[in-house]
Amino acid sequence: MESFFNPKSVAIIGASAVPGKLGHEITKNFVKYGFKGEVYPVNLKWDKILGLKVWRSVLDIPNTVDLAVIATPAKSVPKIMEECARKKVKAVIIISGGFRETGHKGAVLEEQIVRVVKKSGIRVIGPNCVGIYDAVTKVDTIFDPPSRLQRPSAGPISIIAQSAAVGAGLLEWLDQEEIGVSKFISYGNACDVNEADLLEYLGDDESTKVVILQIEGFSDGRKLIEVAKRVTLKKPVVGLKTGRTRTGGRVARSHTAVLAGRDEICDAAFKQSGIIRAHTCEEALDFAKALAYQPLPKGDKVLIFGNSGGTAVIASDFCEDLGIPLAALKKESINRIKEIFPPHTIIQNPMDLTGDVTSENLGRALEYSVSDAGVDCVVLLVQFQTPLLSEEVVDIIGEVSQRFPDKPFVFGGVGGDYTLKLARMLEKKYRIPAYKCPERAVKALWALIWRSKYLKGREAQI
Amino acid sequence: MESFFNPKSVAIIGASAVPGKLGHEITKNFVKYGFKGEVYPVNLKWDKILGLKVWRSVLDIPNTVDLAVIATPAKSVPKIMEECARKKVKAVIIISGGFRETGHKGAVLEEQIVRVVKKSGIRVIGPNCVGIYDAVTKVDTIFDPPSRLQRPSAGPISIIAQSAAVGAGLLEWLDQEEIGVSKFISYGNACDVNEADLLEYLGDDESTKVVILQIEGFSDGRKLIEVAKRVTLKKPVVGLKTGRTRTGGRVARSHTAVLAGRDEICDAAFKQSGIIRAHTCEEALDFAKALAYQPLPKGDKVLIFGNSGGTAVIASDFCEDLGIPLAALKKESINRIKEIFPPHTIIQNPMDLTGDVTSENLGRALEYSVSDAGVDCVVLLVQFQTPLLSEEVVDIIGEVSQRFPDKPFVFGGVGGDYTLKLARMLEKKYRIPAYKCPERAVKALWALIWRSKYLKGREAQI
Repeated sequence: MESFFNPKSVAIIGASAVPGKLGHEITKNFVKYGFKGEVYPVNLKWDKILGLKVWRSVLDIPNTVDLAVIATPAKSVPKIMEECARKKVKAVIIISGGFRETGHKGAVLEEQIVRVVKKSGIRVIGPNCVGIYDAVTKVDTIFDPPSRLQRPSAGPISIIAQSAAVGAGLLEWLDQEEIGVSKFISYGNACDVNEADLLEYLGDDESTKVVILQIEGFSDGRKLIEVAKRVTLKKPVVGLKTGRTRTGGRVARSHTAVLAGRDEICDAAFKQSGIIRAHTCEEALDFAKALAYQPLPKGDKVLIFGNSGGTAVIASDFCEDLGIPLAALKKESINRIKEIFPPHTIIQNPMDLTGDVTSENLGRALEYSVSDAGVDCVVLLVQFQTPLLSEEVVDIIGEVSQRFPDKPFVFGGVGGDYTLKLARMLEKKYRIPAYKCPERAVKALWALIWRSKYLKGREAQI
Repeated sequence: MESFFNPKSVAIIGASAVPGKLGHEITKNFVKYGFKGEVYPVNLKWDKILGLKVWRSVLDIPNTVDLAVIATPAKSVPKIMEECARKKVKAVIIISGGFRETGHKGAVLEEQIVRVVKKSGIRVIGPNCVGIYDAVTKVDTIFDPPSRLQRPSAGPISIIAQSAAVGAGLLEWLDQEEIGVSKFISYGNACDVNEADLLEYLGDDESTKVVILQIEGFSDGRKLIEVAKRVTLKKPVVGLKTGRTRTGGRVARSHTAVLAGRDEICDAAFKQSGIIRAHTCEEALDFAKALAYQPLPKGDKVLIFGNSGGTAVIASDFCEDLGIPLAALKKESINRIKEIFPPHTIIQNPMDLTGDVTSENLGRALEYSVSDAGVDCVVLLVQFQTPLLSEEVVDIIGEVSQRFPDKPFVFGGVGGDYTLKLARMLEKKYRIPAYKCPERAVKALWALIWRSKYLKGREAQI
């Protein structure tokens, strides 16, 4: 599997000199953005592509080839696979579509590929996929150019995606939110390497702290559960199963030719194996960010803390929806905080210090309330817009959070550009994941609590 | 009510010369950002504020006062209200907190205000609110400075918010998304003017095309339903009821002193009166945007159209969740489209033209499929990143949508900066509301379908 992500040499079969063609864009990725290995374009037509000598066949390449990327019409792929096998290529990514997902004729072609795989032991990702983006080694088979599909720098989250578009969307969001990515894999039809193989690999990958797994169906459900059970003991896995419904399942069948399966079964499988289930693309990213940045809470008692009553009401609703109880603050904690404020300020959980609070007093109240032993985790709902809060409130909050390294914090204040700027500072500098609204912050916290409970349950079994 | 939104003269009681103080920021809003009427700061301490003469009492002002804004400590407010009544001020916005929401003492103060209201006929918004922002007249009592809380320009959506923070957050989002706002009202404790009064007013306000109503509880549920039943015949109302749960309801009680009420009752009341219920802040805005920009569909049959299978699977899931059936395309439509593409392309609904499609072919396929009489509305899932699509695809899609003025379109392709740029063009130029992901696009379309069905049901009753 290492040859997929860190090959010393790559052959690009179907390389092209014409900008816009898949084979051109992929070649460019390897030539222009820092890939360290050898690059061998293969094509019958051109002599040079982007300054590189072009080979007529993978068999003509004088050196060993670790990875071959195939971007040629479907019907040519079986023969090319034979050649790759003869060349003893270790790993192949087949970008081309036109296989099992298009009907009988395509399925026959795909079977021919599988036969080569079985005979030769060569490993294949695809067909019908965009392949791999590795932010460190710069293996990048994504044919959409970086000006249109932005590539994140190195970060803690890896993505395994059956759908290229969904996976690539998540990948771009990781860049937009400046989170970064470790490895991105779009695996398409999974004729050989499937989601379970990839999950197993990422389970042992040190640079991957969290895995997002987007699937439309199970290639081998039993194996996935078994692998996930092991991997989730080591690191969090967020599962986004699409094709949940009858309609969605039918559509998935014509997309990646998978059997979507009954959703109750998927739900049970995820729960059993410790995969945290997300129900939307945004949830998948929200969960992964919280899991990458924050510790797991020891318990599930939440403190809702801020200077706004309205967002606290929303957070409370979502806590109840998700079974997260509000922490009961001790009398001593409440009295310590009461001393800071004028007598009419109500000190309770949720704590609404109102629009009059200063940065300093907000920091003290946060310190005193989080230090309460009954508080396991914190939803921050600070509205930064109020005139009495200075920008320093970001550091004040951040420093308090650092004094409680075993209590996770999430941020869910609502606002515009100024709010986003400060929220981003909180996230970049103090790793407090920031969300656009309280609903999403609470749901992300739920993911941390869910995992904490799951791990306790597994420990109890052992 | 007109005096709240278009006063010829405003007294700001509790005006201050100290930047950061509420009374300063509010005065500045009226002085600096284009308010056309007279401004009278009232304060005992200063002689000039921002170049304006300061009056000792509203009674000293030599001219009539249409609107008074009060930002003084709670205990001073009843006496000021008496003075406003004597001065025959028409409307008062009480920004100050410290009333019913803080317990018995505050409730007594609030009752004193209500007594003045009843005696004098003066209308009051608040207390415990941020008041009004009118994008046209520039009445702006929001004490958070524009550098921290951005003000939208004029647009089709109005916001009635019980929670200042939630309402202001939505307001800022309207600016970030360049949608604009008509009127924003944060009404707090609703000691006089309540959500029903405001809804009634906005129902007749020509510049308001859609209303977002965020409430924590009902001041007068029966009246709200009765008003909403009339208003929703004229324009869409999106309801965001927070404090849905037992926990949330309890928190709401200590926030705005309302009775949150049982959620089933709220749900039934909304359904009966045609208020489209949103369950999160983001949904409220998503729905309002679709309702502001797109026509209502004649039926509920959806076409899912794009160049990505993965997002089509997600959209299909959410269509089934929300009871939206996929349109069955006629044979003739399918055959017309098949002629454009190579034989292996599968033409069906959802339509996935795959990553190889060109802008021109995508446009033709869209035209042919939307013209099918079985299609009532469209979810566009175009992944703009693919190399063969040019930027002109935005105009191609937009122009097709304009040829079908009675079929609503929503956009839900996922991506990063490039995708957002093109999606924003689609939204700005062609009023196709663009969402970050298919889930949100489908939900927004649901809001259009829901309203269409509601109106048909009401018509049938008449």
